Amino acid sequence: MNTPLIGSAIIGQSGGPSAVINASAYGVIKTALESEYITKVYGANHGIRGVLDDRLMIMDEEDPKELEKMLYTPSSALGSCRYKIADPDYDDTDFRRILEIFKKYNVRYFFYNGGNDSMDTCNKISKYMARVGYDCRVIGVPKTIDNDLYGTDHCPGFSSAAKYIATSFMEVSRDCHVYDTGMITIIECMGRHAGWLTAAAALANLTGDGPDLIYLPERDFDMDQFISDVKRTYEATGKCLVAVSEGVHYADGSFVSEAKTSGTDGFGHAQLGGLASRLASVVKASTGAKVRGIELSLLQRCAAHCASGTDIEESFNSGRVAVESALAGHTDKMVGFRCTRDENGYKCSYELFNLSDVANTEQKVPQEWINEAGNGVTRGFIDYCLPLIAGETSMVKKNGLPDFVQLKKVFAE
Amino acid sequence: MNTPLIGSAIIGQSGGPSAVINASAYGVIKTALESEYITKVYGANHGIRGVLDDRLMIMDEEDPKELEKMLYTPSSALGSCRYKIADPDYDDTDFRRILEIFKKYNVRYFFYNGGNDSMDTCNKISKYMARVGYDCRVIGVPKTIDNDLYGTDHCPGFSSAAKYIATSFMEVSRDCHVYDTGMITIIECMGRHAGWLTAAAALANLTGDGPDLIYLPERDFDMDQFISDVKRTYEATGKCLVAVSEGVHYADGSFVSEAKTSGTDGFGHAQLGGLASRLASVVKASTGAKVRGIELSLLQRCAAHCASGTDIEESFNSGRVAVESALAGHTDKMVGFRCTRDENGYKCSYELFNLSDVANTEQKVPQEWINEAGNGVTRGFIDYCLPLIAGETSMVKKNGLPDFVQLKKVFAE
Repeated sequence: MNTPLIGSAIIGQSGGPSAVINASAYGVIKTALESEYITKVYGANHGIRGVLDDRLMIMDEEDPKELEKMLYTPSSALGSCRYKIADPDYDDTDFRRILEIFKKYNVRYFFYNGGNDSMDTCNKISKYMARVGYDCRVIGVPKTIDNDLYGTDHCPGFSSAAKYIATSFMEVSRDCHVYDTGMITIIECMGRHAGWLTAAAALANLTGDGPDLIYLPERDFDMDQFISDVKRTYEATGKCLVAVSEGVHYADGSFVSEAKTSGTDGFGHAQLGGLASRLASVVKASTGAKVRGIELSLLQRCAAHCASGTDIEESFNSGRVAVESALAGHTDKMVGFRCTRDENGYKCSYELFNLSDVANTEQKVPQEWINEAGNGVTRGFIDYCLPLIAGETSMVKKNGLPDFVQLKKVFAE
Repeated sequence: MNTPLIGSAIIGQSGGPSAVINASAYGVIKTALESEYITKVYGANHGIRGVLDDRLMIMDEEDPKELEKMLYTPSSALGSCRYKIADPDYDDTDFRRILEIFKKYNVRYFFYNGGNDSMDTCNKISKYMARVGYDCRVIGVPKTIDNDLYGTDHCPGFSSAAKYIATSFMEVSRDCHVYDTGMITIIECMGRHAGWLTAAAALANLTGDGPDLIYLPERDFDMDQFISDVKRTYEATGKCLVAVSEGVHYADGSFVSEAKTSGTDGFGHAQLGGLASRLASVVKASTGAKVRGIELSLLQRCAAHCASGTDIEESFNSGRVAVESALAGHTDKMVGFRCTRDENGYKCSYELFNLSDVANTEQKVPQEWINEAGNGVTRGFIDYCLPLIAGETSMVKKNGLPDFVQLKKVFAE
């Protein structure tokens, strides 16, 4: 192991936010501020764009008490971006600029907090710095409610979204089962390519308050089968609660949410509203029942008030471990989780994964965790997911509302 | 005051559920079970339909510890209905049947837990029993997230929905302000005729995380003005967060959500999806910005995990006071709140209102609490609403999820 480098650190956040991405960033910031080797801690404003634009916030200037609120504040407190960095083999403009900024602030540690694309950015920066011989340690701190990062047992952010989704299904289930008349409810969850979030609705079934049917993008969607599933449940019980992933697609790969026509709905024009309202209209036409479509939308990824205590702790620790690993000499890695679930309960340990393995590989729900009919999940998924949603947030409230972090945002220069 | 009658009690729940309607019912059930005059406590399954169908659950048979979970369980644990009872002057079939059931079980206390229609049902039953000389005390226990019941300072259920809405606005605001690129977000809240719930979004402005614009049904909606408001905010800040009530309507009374065409959106066919997605498409067409429509849908009325502690306490107490008032000889009344807000803080006392005054009168957001431009609320509303959302739920969790009540449902006979 190398000895720690002496210099400053940058932490940036990128991609879609989550309920706990700030907990990870706080893990980085707090540990970096406490390190004797890290001379200054900068927060990049709006991710890598903040580096490119020389918009760096001095985290040393923030009140430590205020910073602690990052544990309970959703979204990216430093600002996010969706900037896709070029491949340096074709265009190294951005990389030369990043190097310039790194040199300007003597940046020896770079931490990037995000999903697949962010790990790709991290990977490219790491490789570039190695190639030009600039000594800088680059560690990715994962985040994605989609839970689709390769290697790690799960992703920080997923567990809190899963908890919110399961809780909301329990509540909505009670609500839509209350009348003595029939009702079909279709709830759309996020997950364009992976069905983890939608599958989490199944946790509500542990108390009998969950969905009757679950559709994930890991299986091709068949509209006729879907209608028949819903009808069967509705006719048997007078109710039907459905969880469906925004990313469900037909066998030809076209998204159900985007298809201009379908075999059964008969609409010939592009429809407004999301998948839930589209499926609701199809089911309504087929059953005549009262049908309601609900889209969980942004709510599911920012519901810090319903965050998982386990997720907050693990997210914070992944930030902490990122800094500790960098200080210990590691670079070009992502912090991930290796977990065990057995008679001794759930245990999570932290491990480093190669960024090049992680970047741009998608982890999907394993086929063996989806039932044969493709309309539900198995116990295997429940056993996997249940420990992740344990524990509650310690969010501080003021006037009955969350007391989110308010950064001073003192910019360098 | 009359002496207490000796006999049994029925509690029924009706109309759309809320996060705390069960807290009210529990207030009735617990107090009635403890009364030496009330011989048996029945829960009507699916409201007045449970009485008509002789479907009465014996609450004495339930485990008191389990019943206590009603404080934290959303929706109507006894089952709800939307049955509109006939006017007995024209058709007294239902009333003769109710009398028959009351006599069969020696029912001397009838408590009905619901909104405007339920208070109307209560009122009719009370008048009918008086007319036929059957000695029975009838008290309404209010519930409506819409907050539109006449007389009472506010309605049980509103405060919890308001807290959820304000919390969600804070969270979504953080989420949709995170990028360095522009974004317009339109969130639709419930309230067909009264804008209380939508106005509650303004509480999020206390921390700077609230909506830029708020539109209530108490003011006629003008699409051109709306677009111009959004554009102005978006151009000035690159962001715009809008709260809009499902019940906003044009000057001619037609709902914006239902209008086939409008001056600006140019669509000639009925649209799927709710108001939020309709307005989103209009704004998108006018600005070219990235626009997202979000409908809070059922989530806002059943989010027990985010209930107001004040609401839970007041809801429970309104049920308790209903029983105590009936025992003290009152009938044909609804329990309501009389509140003061001054330098000594917030105080709530319980009062009885005449059912005939309450039934079918709607309380709207006062005009003086809406700003001149009709796109926001004033400090008066904030001062009114803020104390109502104070305090947190003590909901018990199991495996990280709510532990909702599971009734045995032992039916009489």
